[in-house]
Amino acid sequence: MTSVSITGVGLTKIGQHWDRSLRSLAVEAASRAMEDSGIEGVDAIFVGNMMSGLLNGQENLGSLLADYLGLAGIPSVKVEAACASGGAAAVQGFMAVKSGLFRRVLVVGVEKMTDMTDSEDVSAALATAADAEYEVFYGATFVSLNALIMRLYARRYGLSEEDFGYLPILMHSNASDTPHAQLRFKIDMERYLGSPMISDPLRLMDAAPVGDGAAAVVLEGSDSGVEVAGVGMATDQIALHSRGDLLRLPAVELAARRAMEMAGITQKEVDVFQIHDAFSVMGYLNMESIGLAEPGRAYILAESGEIARDGPVPVNPEGGLKARGHPVGATGIYQLAELYNQIVGRAGPSQVEGAKLGFAINVGGTGSNVAAVVLRGR
Amino acid sequence: MTSVSITGVGLTKIGQHWDRSLRSLAVEAASRAMEDSGIEGVDAIFVGNMMSGLLNGQENLGSLLADYLGLAGIPSVKVEAACASGGAAAVQGFMAVKSGLFRRVLVVGVEKMTDMTDSEDVSAALATAADAEYEVFYGATFVSLNALIMRLYARRYGLSEEDFGYLPILMHSNASDTPHAQLRFKIDMERYLGSPMISDPLRLMDAAPVGDGAAAVVLEGSDSGVEVAGVGMATDQIALHSRGDLLRLPAVELAARRAMEMAGITQKEVDVFQIHDAFSVMGYLNMESIGLAEPGRAYILAESGEIARDGPVPVNPEGGLKARGHPVGATGIYQLAELYNQIVGRAGPSQVEGAKLGFAINVGGTGSNVAAVVLRGR
Repeated sequence: MTSVSITGVGLTKIGQHWDRSLRSLAVEAASRAMEDSGIEGVDAIFVGNMMSGLLNGQENLGSLLADYLGLAGIPSVKVEAACASGGAAAVQGFMAVKSGLFRRVLVVGVEKMTDMTDSEDVSAALATAADAEYEVFYGATFVSLNALIMRLYARRYGLSEEDFGYLPILMHSNASDTPHAQLRFKIDMERYLGSPMISDPLRLMDAAPVGDGAAAVVLEGSDSGVEVAGVGMATDQIALHSRGDLLRLPAVELAARRAMEMAGITQKEVDVFQIHDAFSVMGYLNMESIGLAEPGRAYILAESGEIARDGPVPVNPEGGLKARGHPVGATGIYQLAELYNQIVGRAGPSQVEGAKLGFAINVGGTGSNVAAVVLRGR
Repeated sequence: MTSVSITGVGLTKIGQHWDRSLRSLAVEAASRAMEDSGIEGVDAIFVGNMMSGLLNGQENLGSLLADYLGLAGIPSVKVEAACASGGAAAVQGFMAVKSGLFRRVLVVGVEKMTDMTDSEDVSAALATAADAEYEVFYGATFVSLNALIMRLYARRYGLSEEDFGYLPILMHSNASDTPHAQLRFKIDMERYLGSPMISDPLRLMDAAPVGDGAAAVVLEGSDSGVEVAGVGMATDQIALHSRGDLLRLPAVELAARRAMEMAGITQKEVDVFQIHDAFSVMGYLNMESIGLAEPGRAYILAESGEIARDGPVPVNPEGGLKARGHPVGATGIYQLAELYNQIVGRAGPSQVEGAKLGFAINVGGTGSNVAAVVLRGR
């Protein structure tokens, strides 16, 4: 059969959209993607979202979106895989086209996180990605679980406090001229080190911000557009206490290998990477798990500028989760929309020269659910 | 390619399992399904669930289940489509096998509804299937929306109070000897009419009970087992106020037609039906939407016994949502497991003689998201 391709993308600016609803953001992104693809309808919709039930009192997003796009009638469901919900929805969309059941589908990622009366609500909702009975029940939050990982990482590999700052500093620099980014300002090491400790040793500036946003891609069985050359998903044990080594992300390794094998490539051929830097240490572990650095050495890639837009291994040229933003269920689709824009050469100031092969890794939980995608230009 | 087939099923008794967790129920059903299929692992998992975030503080069920089944590593995601989450997950599993990406997948439906400290929590969680901003915000619950539909139905078609009782009375009779059913007792018209009005004109005995349960099926690309001959999904406008006629379920019509067309059958050939009788009026509308009765006449099928196990058009021989039970995200998989057992002739007291062709319709929201499946014996 013909390959599965992305033929259009759409995204909204990420931010604290107090005047926008979840449906409004999702419809904007989806409409833009269909317009970009030059179409007025699709055969099915897959919605990536994690927390709409808890944060917005709204499930059944499949029906909601089909309805508000004027497409009621077509199949439309929500896919959830914690922070990897967007990537997981994209893989479902890929399978839907590959199965022959649908010719053209829309994949929409959306999360609306800032309408809560109490910021503890958001922490509690994010914690549902962890093990409710054996982690959250005992007081762990998502931030504290990542702080545990960060502490061990620093100790085992002898990292200084500064070493964790190189990644967020680069990400803020990348986001500073990205129109749709949430945190469009640069930070320096002084500001990084001066940012509040939110779960020792994890600082505010190690963490992706809370924000609202939606992104969408149109997937078609087509030989035009950007080819979805490979997809891969994987899981790991949900609770940290079950794992053999907290400083390995086997699900990232597995998902990346599966996607790259399907595409018939190695990571050395990739022109631009999207990694899941929800926390600085997660960003480093991502890069190590896909083979960009030896264990404990990823910070050097950030410090040296090797992963800068003009470096040999560009990573997150739009600012990544840290600074472009991380509206949870939408993040995996932002990654794909950004890679698409890179490959078709319309990434503006964040453009990586000659990018033709893109790779995205979208990570749920503390590495327990992962979706990887390889995009290839024609 | 070879067809997609169900090669094993597993289910738990539905009930108020105060001593069981969501994961425990899901693992039991999944393990039984794999044992029934004679296998020890699968290539991917699709979990149908609606409310685990709100009711159990647990999302990321894909990771949780893969982990607790000892299968961490394989792809595993949650699919949500309100009360049609189970059916929707089954359709995803079907596509996954059809796409060629996976040879063998597990589809698990699970809902754990009875551990709440406050029964209002469950009502609020169920209401997330409706339109949060334009229905729920103004005080509508899922029961009250169905009561509106019931009132209009009774008025337009001139039904008496008794006429709505025929379906629940038959369902309770069917469930009375179904081992996994939640409400294993018969009711008569006196008890139906004496049951409390919970949202006039809707009585307690018009509503499916709140319960916990899990069901699972193994789907394989295989020419043995029971063939998944057709699948269909559809959406409708999410809020009642948007619809042209509250007494039509266009998404049920569409999904049923799509599934039957894929299978190359008409409803007249079906030996046994599973319909979504979350409320009596929904059961009647289901039957009318798939062509079993003219509008307003479905009650006659129940009154006359035509839809009894030994009637010409057997419907819900295990007791349906009303009496077998309705653990929301699991219901669509209970339907498939029950049809499978009917077709392979091991449905016990609920066995429909010679059942070879089965049809299930799983309905989310007030008819806004629907999954239909046709199963065919060999």
